[in-house]
Formats: sequence, structure tokens, C-alpha cells
Amino acid sequence: MDINRKLRMGMIGGSEGAFIGDIHRKAAIMDSQIELICGAFSSSPQRSEETGRILHLPKKRVYDSYQEMIIGEKNLPKDERMDFVTIVTPNNQHFPQAKFALENGFHVVCDKPMTANLGEAMELGSLVKETGLIFMLTHNYTGYPMVKQAGEMARGGALGELRKVVVEYPQGWLATLMERTGHKQAAWRSDPEITGNVLTMGDVGTHAENLIEYITGLEVSEVNAELSTLVKGRKMDDDDNILLRFSNGARGAFIASQVSTGEENNLKIKVYGEKGGLEWAQMEPNSLTVRWTDKPLQILRAGNNAPGLSEIAKRNCRLPAGHPEGFIEAFANIYLEFARAVTNHIEGKNSETGSYDFPDVADGIRGMAFIKTVLESTKSSKKWIPFVSPELEN
Amino acid sequence: MDINRKLRMGMIGGSEGAFIGDIHRKAAIMDSQIELICGAFSSSPQRSEETGRILHLPKKRVYDSYQEMIIGEKNLPKDERMDFVTIVTPNNQHFPQAKFALENGFHVVCDKPMTANLGEAMELGSLVKETGLIFMLTHNYTGYPMVKQAGEMARGGALGELRKVVVEYPQGWLATLMERTGHKQAAWRSDPEITGNVLTMGDVGTHAENLIEYITGLEVSEVNAELSTLVKGRKMDDDDNILLRFSNGARGAFIASQVSTGEENNLKIKVYGEKGGLEWAQMEPNSLTVRWTDKPLQILRAGNNAPGLSEIAKRNCRLPAGHPEGFIEAFANIYLEFARAVTNHIEGKNSETGSYDFPDVADGIRGMAFIKTVLESTKSSKKWIPFVSPELEN
Amino acid sequence: MDINRKLRMGMIGGSEGAFIGDIHRKAAIMDSQIELICGAFSSSPQRSEETGRILHLPKKRVYDSYQEMIIGEKNLPKDERMDFVTIVTPNNQHFPQAKFALENGFHVVCDKPMTANLGEAMELGSLVKETGLIFMLTHNYTGYPMVKQAGEMARGGALGELRKVVVEYPQGWLATLMERTGHKQAAWRSDPEITGNVLTMGDVGTHAENLIEYITGLEVSEVNAELSTLVKGRKMDDDDNILLRFSNGARGAFIASQVSTGEENNLKIKVYGEKGGLEWAQMEPNSLTVRWTDKPLQILRAGNNAPGLSEIAKRNCRLPAGHPEGFIEAFANIYLEFARAVTNHIEGKNSETGSYDFPDVADGIRGMAFIKTVLESTKSSKKWIPFVSPELEN
Amino acid sequence: MDINRKLRMGMIGGSEGAFIGDIHRKAAIMDSQIELICGAFSSSPQRSEETGRILHLPKKRVYDSYQEMIIGEKNLPKDERMDFVTIVTPNNQHFPQAKFALENGFHVVCDKPMTANLGEAMELGSLVKETGLIFMLTHNYTGYPMVKQAGEMARGGALGELRKVVVEYPQGWLATLMERTGHKQAAWRSDPEITGNVLTMGDVGTHAENLIEYITGLEVSEVNAELSTLVKGRKMDDDDNILLRFSNGARGAFIASQVSTGEENNLKIKVYGEKGGLEWAQMEPNSLTVRWTDKPLQILRAGNNAPGLSEIAKRNCRLPAGHPEGFIEAFANIYLEFARAVTNHIEGKNSETGSYDFPDVADGIRGMAFIKTVLESTKSSKKWIPFVSPELEN
Repeated sequence: MDINRKLRMGMIGGSEGAFIGDIHRKAAIMDSQIELICGAFSSSPQRSEETGRILHLPKKRVYDSYQEMIIGEKNLPKDERMDFVTIVTPNNQHFPQAKFALENGFHVVCDKPMTANLGEAMELGSLVKETGLIFMLTHNYTGYPMVKQAGEMARGGALGELRKVVVEYPQGWLATLMERTGHKQAAWRSDPEITGNVLTMGDVGTHAENLIEYITGLEVSEVNAELSTLVKGRKMDDDDNILLRFSNGARGAFIASQVSTGEENNLKIKVYGEKGGLEWAQMEPNSLTVRWTDKPLQILRAGNNAPGLSEIAKRNCRLPAGHPEGFIEAFANIYLEFARAVTNHIEGKNSETGSYDFPDVADGIRGMAFIKTVLESTKSSKKWIPFVSPELEN
Repeated sequence: MDINRKLRMGMIGGSEGAFIGDIHRKAAIMDSQIELICGAFSSSPQRSEETGRILHLPKKRVYDSYQEMIIGEKNLPKDERMDFVTIVTPNNQHFPQAKFALENGFHVVCDKPMTANLGEAMELGSLVKETGLIFMLTHNYTGYPMVKQAGEMARGGALGELRKVVVEYPQGWLATLMERTGHKQAAWRSDPEITGNVLTMGDVGTHAENLIEYITGLEVSEVNAELSTLVKGRKMDDDDNILLRFSNGARGAFIASQVSTGEENNLKIKVYGEKGGLEWAQMEPNSLTVRWTDKPLQILRAGNNAPGLSEIAKRNCRLPAGHPEGFIEAFANIYLEFARAVTNHIEGKNSETGSYDFPDVADGIRGMAFIKTVLESTKSSKKWIPFVSPELEN
Repeated sequence: MDINRKLRMGMIGGSEGAFIGDIHRKAAIMDSQIELICGAFSSSPQRSEETGRILHLPKKRVYDSYQEMIIGEKNLPKDERMDFVTIVTPNNQHFPQAKFALENGFHVVCDKPMTANLGEAMELGSLVKETGLIFMLTHNYTGYPMVKQAGEMARGGALGELRKVVVEYPQGWLATLMERTGHKQAAWRSDPEITGNVLTMGDVGTHAENLIEYITGLEVSEVNAELSTLVKGRKMDDDDNILLRFSNGARGAFIASQVSTGEENNLKIKVYGEKGGLEWAQMEPNSLTVRWTDKPLQILRAGNNAPGLSEIAKRNCRLPAGHPEGFIEAFANIYLEFARAVTNHIEGKNSETGSYDFPDVADGIRGMAFIKTVLESTKSSKKWIPFVSPELEN
Repeated sequence: MDINRKLRMGMIGGSEGAFIGDIHRKAAIMDSQIELICGAFSSSPQRSEETGRILHLPKKRVYDSYQEMIIGEKNLPKDERMDFVTIVTPNNQHFPQAKFALENGFHVVCDKPMTANLGEAMELGSLVKETGLIFMLTHNYTGYPMVKQAGEMARGGALGELRKVVVEYPQGWLATLMERTGHKQAAWRSDPEITGNVLTMGDVGTHAENLIEYITGLEVSEVNAELSTLVKGRKMDDDDNILLRFSNGARGAFIASQVSTGEENNLKIKVYGEKGGLEWAQMEPNSLTVRWTDKPLQILRAGNNAPGLSEIAKRNCRLPAGHPEGFIEAFANIYLEFARAVTNHIEGKNSETGSYDFPDVADGIRGMAFIKTVLESTKSSKKWIPFVSPELEN
């Protein structure tokens, strides 16, 4: 069976003016495989309605609450109702919303960090397993073609045994006490009631952690962390510095900050192996620098026709080299892969490769376990704390 | 009246595998203001159908020919039929297709170069004027936020009186005789029957010419051109070098090439005025370098929150600084402005600013006149040939 | 009294083929304020003689041992004998040679790390103090004009209160077990008998530590260090990762490595304050990136005529902007300042600014104390170890 | 015979505060093969004396005029007198001074442009030939290691048959009428009595022309030039735009300007052949970008140990990769090669390679012929003017 239609997407959160909801929408629809057909965009019915209007949704498909939407859509005929729901609300709402969606039979896309704590993450993991539904966590940086190329090379052995990883994720937008100025994004992110126990670690740190694992395939075995609050009056961490040990003996340095004044969104990763090293920077995402012991430095370039790229990297490019793709396209790449998984699910097929290339609930569990461990390490006078991410029981 | 719906787009050309048609689709729909509802994607009905299937269009809205589509859509009820048609066929088809669309009352988006010659361009200009319909020519590079910023600065006087412009557009993909290898894109572009009299000048040169005018507002008054064919066996120009004089006395150098081996799509422009100079490069589009006589060098950065940007540049960013936007988003920017124009047309409103910020039929006429003049100059032993772009009569 | 002559330099170590000795010579003489007049270039008299010949020194001024040279020169008439000696031997020889030179009345330039351990460093400090002679330690990276500019800005308050420092110093040349391949530089550096207890920490780590202090003026108060050996068979550290706390509450991350495969000499520092941040990279040393909260990014550029630079930065440039100066010129800058100090000493004058702008014995003591502390931290299971650098007694 | 001593250099011009004279001195002496032993630094005896004092020269070797110096040195015993003279005076003085030096038996280093016109250049060429003395013209940019690498690749066929050359040399320091503000460098350069008929073409254009020939080995066969004066009140060209044809059919674009506001010293060259292209930029001189049709982009890096470099490129590096060398070192490279030639001459040997790798009087003749031709082209209404550089008769 071939469904031959666009997948139908619903959205929780993401009212007009929200940052990440808008990105999800653009990314989801740009490749003509998904259409947005309904939403509960805000806890304010009026804001939700206004957003629906701007997006040209039919009024009846704009809901006052996520519960209403999920129940409402479930009650529609199968060939009308949404296939999956995208959750782009503040952190503490992810869990109940995702749970409710899964329990009612909908596939889920959830923004990161996945939940407010590890317990919720584990519960969500069990539920995904039980229901067999598709769940994607939007660690969108793994969608960049040159991140995929980096992964092919680092995991695939081209660099030899890996020895060292340096990841940096500096931003500067919280260099002042933004959360007291009426800045909405800053306000909720800085409120422990909403985000859990961490600010920067959840907002950007989990991306960095996920990126390390995606590219290197290494397992963090111990952490030595200091989560600091450098802006007076702030309630949670805004500058995180962590040393890492990996299970193969490799070493890592992990720096995440939102008080690195003037920095935009400067995620960078460097990975060094016995034979070579690579470097990728999110702000110039279409290049991947590769250094070798005995050959000239190479710059691999994104492009569906670019020389030297792996098939997976090429397949994640829409354009020939020299036509820059960016943040939204990387985001769209993971949506495309999610759409493939959902379509296969509907059609009763499995992935031909045995797995899908998008971040999922297991990544979310590891992320929440990482947060828990670095918080524990921060409070400890012991240098090294083992990092163990719980496994879902069978 | 507020139409409150997405605009309905039809497409001529752009079957699966085509480069530019796919970009148009992604760019058009990503911001939720436009939906693709029909297409005549290929001269082969089978290919057209297959493309429609991949795009999940209803079968009856996939047509066998552009004529069928235009007539077919015209005959549909007003609240169903397409609002505009996007033409992404080889150059020599632009004119008859655009003409037919306009004559039947449809707004038009047309890929560049606009027509095969200046005569057709003039005729199209008259038709646009007569019909009062909206016509956009996709000189998409003007959609980049930092190009808009450059224009604000250069045209707005921030650099002082302008003195010098250097534009370069090197590509390398035609460094071998690709057109004889079965490469479809290369084949039609290299066939004078299809493209008119120029290869590189039409394919990338017109973008460069348009970019100069958009950013500087200067008028080319004389050209001294050499269009060369550097790959043996090729039928048209593949390397163009031109000196320019502008009407205010400024000087220009213009370099376009498709045999600059190894170059991707390296469009760059530098503009120097009495007080400062600026530099923009398409392959790193989110930065604009600004040099001053007496102040440190600045890098203005794209971003809807970026310091130092004009309102128009910010408005053309979807994301905060550090979240790279690329080729497709720039393309989407001109589609958004086109959508605004079409919506206003339908609603009977005028642009509140008196004009729209997208390239139109007048740009197309200037482009075709420029091609004609540089060809003339190439053949001439006279050093300088005046450049006069014909005006549409009232 | 104005001596009006070039200062006379002698050299210990630096036979033909040695890396750093040759740099010292070029740097010292290029500005016409110093001439090399004698040397004991090698423990092999033959090699020493050969080096003297290549340098066109008179035979009688080429000595078989440093003791011979120091005594020999001391016995020459005052208007012939050397003014100062430069020591460019392996680490463990620095102390006895510098001591002997000082005891015999010669000013000293000593390569880093200053000594093999903190005890020697303290003893040398006392001796410098007692003799009143001039002592320079060649932390040459502080000689770059843009490092001086960075220091003016960071120490001078332009960035506001400092909060975060990230220093990275990756090299890749020890990614294999070079010391077993007959590579002379690798061999002695990797021998604990010669270098003391550290490899990478002494070779590049001390530069990084010194650079932090020079630019920021902050004091490290606590360290949390892991010095690792990642290449099997190596006897000392080759990869160092350290978290820092500064006495004002700022945080730091410190990464030094010689197994970062493919990296050349990629020293970088980033400093963030309340109002702005700056970034400098040794491999592109003529630029200093400055980021602000509310203004566009600036690139300050080296040049004796460059806009926006402090006087001290300009004074350390020989050339106008756009004429790159490099490693040797930075090295020459500290030699020029040393020459000024020695000349003043000979002429019986003090520095008009009260101090000289070159790294001295106090920097060396701090460096050795830092090494001691990070070694201690590496062995400790305690997270944080206080860093206290001993003061010289009066 | 092995002279085993430093070569003795005299200097004409280059009084304290002059730009280029100081560079010559630093470059000449830094490698311990040359010493400055005399000078006639200024037409003002007082300034000359003051410069001699700063350089710590003996009073009797500081002369009041170049004639006095040349005669005075000639009359000294052979083992005391200078070996060669470096001429760093304004353009119109080069010819009489070089002539006088050659006629009196001294080798010559002369700054560019070589003479005030082609006639003088030819006469100097004959004199060099007649006397058999060594003559170097300081087109110093050819001394950069990565320029040598570029030459090895482009001339050596690695890029295939060459098709296209783009050279740009923008500076911005004459964007205002500097010559009226008391700026000494600007004043003499802008005075036709002193420089001949060109400003920018002589000051930077000849470097660009020489660089094309050095790297590509191509011969310019025709020029189509416009030398313009863009700043009102200026007497000569300040912005030059030229199209080139080469004898093998390749095309070129040549842009030189001193009114490119804000530009420092931004010499760049791009060369494209059938198989690959390369790009070098003087402001980041230690990298050479190489692009291929079918392989990833490479960045070759300077360094005496850098992978992928030719022997000649490595030999022109003093330092390992990652230790930046700059303008002065490139200058020193051509001085080292000149010193080798002079030493061989004194010792009665020939170059073992049959020729020396420094720019000589033949380059100077071609440069003056190029200036003459582009001036002629500028005045002509004909598009193309043949470029023929006269050959010296045997």
C-alpha cells in the first residue's frame, strides 16, 4: 500500500512570534511531503486562533487546547485526521503533551530538551516502545549534511581510533539579565518551574551532547562538570564547562554558554583520531574541515554534486555545491526522515536500513541522564562522576 | 477585502530532477503563504504525471501541456483556480508561456533570463503593462537579507558617492564539454536554439548585472566587453570579461565564467564609495563586510535581531543571527514579496510603499538589453559601446 | 649617557638545524638594535664551530661550552664583550646556564619553560632580584600587536567585568610516537629527564597560561585538571584539559594538546566580559575579532596606521595594515622591549613607564607553579585545587 | 673560494620614517647573510646622519649623497667596501643611481617600478648585461612561499592548460586627496615629475603584472585598458581596469586601485586551468586554495614541514606550518636568493640551477613596457593593443 499523500501535521504551541514553532512549520512543509492541517498554538484561545488565521488554516482545525485537538482529531475520519503532532511548548509541557498524543495514537515530534527530568524521559521511552509509534526529538543540528559526513568519517573509521573531542556552544544573548526585561523567550527559559533544573544545559548543552554522540559514536563514561551562573540574579546555569572521559579512553572538553557576549549561535565541534581530525562549525555549515597527518588540509563542501562526500551527505543536500543551505534545511532533513518513518508505519513497512536517521526517544533519555549527571557532578567535590544512561527494559 | 487564504500556484516545467523548478516550489511554499495546486511539469505527459504524483497533487490538476493548464485553470471556478503561474522551462519557452499566461489573466513568475532576445522582452513588458498583472523575474540573489542591507547602504549614501564596482561570478561546472556527456542541464544551456545567443552571459551574467543595479542604483552607460569561448567545441560564450562605465563616472569590472575550474557558485560583489566600501559573497551570504576610511572593519551579520541592520534587511530574515539562512530562503523572500503584490492586486490595494521589492519585467528588459550590448561590443573593434536600455512606452 | 651601539648578544644552544635558536637570532637582529657576536651553540664543539661559520662569526667568539663563553666574554674588554646571553637549550639546562650567566653579570633571555621545576624557578627569581639584571622569558606570543590590543581592551575594562576565558592550543605533530623515530625535537621533549615532569604542558601549555594572564590580568585561583597521555608508549602528558576558576569569579576552559591530529599551531583565545567579547587566533594573528552586545562585529586589524588600535598595538607594528607580520616579528617585539630595558640598565636609566612589556622571571615562576598545580590536580580525586603562585621574598 | 662572510650592503634612500627602506633593511639582515654597512639615506645630509645614528652605523660610512657613497666605497680596500647597493628612492631617481652604481662595479637591488620610463629601463638592461653584475628588482610578492608553490603548480602543468587569470590589487589609502595633506608618501607618488606618467599602475599595478607572469608563465599578448582618475584633483591614475589576452588564448582580468576605500593591501590572484584552479591572497599569505574538478578543495599551507608542498616552497619557509611568516620574510626570501647570486659572482661560480629565483632587470623592462602599453591603450579608441616587450640585444 502506497498512501500517496502528504502527511498531516498538527502543532501544539508555536503561536505567531514564537521562534521555534515557526521553524518547525517551514521545515516540515518545504519539501512537499507534509502539510500543517491543525493546531493548538497557544494556551490563549485567541492567540491560537490568530495564528491559525495567519497560517490560513480552517477555523475548525484550530483548537483551544492540546487536549481538545488530540481528541478532536482522533474523532475525525481516518482520511482527514492528523498523522502526527509537533510539540513546541516550554520544556515542562513536553511530557504530558507527548504522553497524551501517544496514548491517543499519534506519532510525535518533540522539541528538546525532551522532558523536565529523567523520570519523565524514561516513562516516555516506555510509552513509545509500547505503542510502537514514531517519536522524533528535534536535535536538528544532526540534520546538516556536513554533520552527517562528519559522522560517516568519524564513526566509520576514516580518522582512525578517536582520541579527543572538543565541543563548544557559545551564545551571548543572556549576557544581561534578559529574563527581567520582558523578553518572553528568556523569561520562560530562565524559570526553573518551567525548564526543570537547568537553563543553558537544557537549551544548548543537550544539542552539544547529542552532536558528540551522533558524530563520534563514542560513549561518555565519566563527567567532571561545573555548571555556573555568571550573571547575578539568574536562577540557573548560564555557563557550563565540562571535562569528559569516553569509554574507549578518549578525552573531551565541553563548553556551553549563553553569556559569551556577542556570540550568536556558535556551535563547533572538533574530533581527532589517530589519522586525522575534523572540524565543523554551525555558523558556516556547508564546509567540513578535514586535517590529516600527511596530506594537505581539505575542505569538504556540501552539495548534492560535491566531490568526496558520502551518499548520505549528498542525499541530505537539495542543491549543488555553492548554493548555501542553512538551519531550516537541516531541520527539514530530519523531518523528511521522520516522514519516511511515519509513512512506512502507516504502510506497514519497516525501514529498509533497519533504522532511521533522526534523533529519537533514546537520545532524549540520554540527554536527560546527561543533565542529571552534570548537575550531580557540579554539586560534588569528587572529580569524576560515572555517566550511565538507563536502558529501557524489554 | 481580505482574501485570507494561501495563494494558488501553478507551475510550467520543473519535472522531478530539474534543478530550479524544485527550488521554486520549496521557496514558494515554505512560508505558508502559497500552495502549489497544479502543474504542467514536462512536455512529456508521463513525466508530468509522475512529478505530480511525487508532489501529491490531485491527478486532474496535473496537465499535459502549459496551454491545457492555463485554459483548464481559467475554466475552473474562481475560488479554485490558480492565482499565478511559475515558469521554469528552458529560456526560449519563457516568452510564449508567459505571454499566454498573461493573456489569460494569470500573474507570472518567470525564471531568468527572461526571454531569448530583447524584442520578446519588450513585447512582454508591454503586455505586463497593458494587463496590469504582476510579473516577477527570479533574480533570486536580490532576496538575500545582506544584499538588501548592501543596497540600503550603497544606494542610501552611507558609502558616499560611489566610484567603483567589481562583480565576479565564477563557476567551474562547464570546464569540460559537459554538454556532450548527456548532462541535461548543460545540454540545453549550451544549445543556441534554446538559450538565444549566449550561454554564461544568460545563465549567470544577468544575475551579476542585476545585482549591480539592485545594490548600487547606478546606471551602466558604456560597456567594453569580451565574451569568450574557452572550451573547444562549445558553441557560445563560457567566459565573459567586461569593463563598465557608469553614468555618474564610476568604473566597473565584471567577470562571469563557467570555466573557472573548481569554483562552485562564487558570486561576489564589491562596491566602493568615497567614505567606505562593502563586500558580499553569495557562498557566505549571512555576512556583509564593510570597510571604512577611518573606523575598524565591520562584519554586519544577518539575523532578525542583528545589530546595525536596516529594517528591510531584518524583515528578510526568519531567524536570529547565527542561524544560517541560505539560497532557498533568499528565493522565498522574493516570493513573499510577490505574494504580497498578488494579494494586494486581488484585494484591490496598492503597495503601501508605492513599489514592491522584487525583480520585475523592467529588470528583464534591462538584462536582455545588456546581453545585446555586450554581444555587440564583443564583435566590435571599438572600445566602448553605449548601453541604453529601451523604455516601455506609455 | 647614550651608548649608541647595537647590543651584543651571545647564544647558548641553537646549533644549525635547531628550531627555536634560529628564530631567536632572526628576531633579535632584524630591527638593527642587537647583533649576535658570540655563541656556544652545541655541546659538540664541532657543531658549535660549524654553526658559527654559517653565521659568519669570528672563530674566537665561538665557544666549546657555555661556561667557556661566559668566562671568556667576561674577560674581554667592556666595549667588546657581550651584553646578554640567550639560552635556547633543552629545559633542564636553562637553570644552571641562566644562573651562571647572571652570577657573572650578564643579562639573560631564556626560552620557556623557564626551568625544570618550581624550586629552580624560585631560585632564579631570587638571583634576578639580587643582581638587578634584566631577565626575559620568551613567551613570544605576547609580542603580537593584536595580543597587546586584546590586553588593552580586556585589562582596560572595554569589555566590562570579565566572566569567561577559553584558551585552546592544539598541535598535532605528536599524534604518533615521533620520539621513537629519531626526530630530535620530539625525542628530548618527550624525555622526563630533560623536560621535567611534563611534555605538552611545558611545551605549549605554559604559553597558553601566560597568554591568559597577559591579556586578561585575571588571577587563576583554582584548577581542575586532567593531564592525559593518549599515545601509547609516551612517558608524559600529550593532551591537557583543565577547568579554571579566577579570583573574580570568572570561569575558564583550558585545552592544550599535541595529539590533535593535523593541527598546526592553533593557539586561540576568547575572552568574554559583560559588555563584549574578543577572539584572537595565532595562525591569523593580524586580526582581532571583537563582538559587542549591541553593535556590529568588528575586526580590528594590525598595522601601524590601522584605525581603532591602541598606541601600544600600533607601536608593535612595523608595517601598514594589510602587510602581514608574523611569528618572527612578534618575537622581535619582545626582543626590542628587552633591548630597551638592557640599554636603560647600561645607561643607568629606569623605564619611563615604570615597567617593561616583556615576560620576565615572575612569569616563569607562575608558569612553573601552574605546572606543579595541574600535575597535583591530575593526581588528585578532589575536584578543585587552589592555585597559589609563590611570591619572591624581599 | 668560499668568502665566508656576510655580504656588505649600502643603501640609497630609506631615511628614518620611510616605509620601504626600513623593510629592505630588516629583510636583508634577518637571515645573517647580509649586513648593512653604509648609507646615503637622504638628500638632506642631516637626515642621513640621523638615520645612520639610529642604525648604529659608523659615522664615516654615512654619506651625504649617493655619488659620495659610491665613490667613497669604491676607494675603500676590497675587504671593507660594500658589495651591493640597495636603492629605495622615489621612482625617477632609480635610473641615475642604479646606473652610477653599476658603472662603478656594484651589484644593485632596486625598488620598483624600476625606472621612470621604458627607455631608461632598456638602457639599464644593457648596462646590467655589459657589466655582468647582479641586479634585483624588488617585486617582493614573488618571495612568498605559497606564490612559489602556485608557480610550481601553474607553470608546471598541474592545473592543465591555463585558461583564465584574475588579478586584483585594491588599496584604499588614496581614496581622499592625501597628496594635498602633507602625507609624504602620497605626495611624491602623486607627482608626475617624480613617478613618470602613472600613479597606481606603477605603485601596485606592476606588482600585479609581475605576479601574473611569475605564477603562470603566460605571456600577455594584447591589452584593453582603462586607467582612470577617480579622485578629483589628482594628476594621474588611481583606478586601473584592464582586460588581457595571453598568447596561448587564455583570458585575463586585471584590477588595480588605490581608491578602493577601506581596502588595505588586498592583492589576490586566481588562476584557472583545464584541471584545476588556485587562489592566493597576500593578506593571508600562508594558505593557497586549490580547487579541482573532481576532488575536494585543498588548502595548501606554508611551512617547512607542510604536506603537499614543492621543495622550492618549503625551502622558502623558515618555520613549521602554523607559525605565520609575512611580508618581511617574503622580502627576505628574495634577498637570500640575491645574496646567493652575489656570493657566487664573487666566488666566480654560476648558479647550479642555471638561473636565480628573484625578479631582475628583464622583469623591470617588461613592467615598464606594460605601463607604456596600458597608457597607450587608455588613450586609444581601439579595443585591443598588442603588448610587445622589447628584448635586449645580444
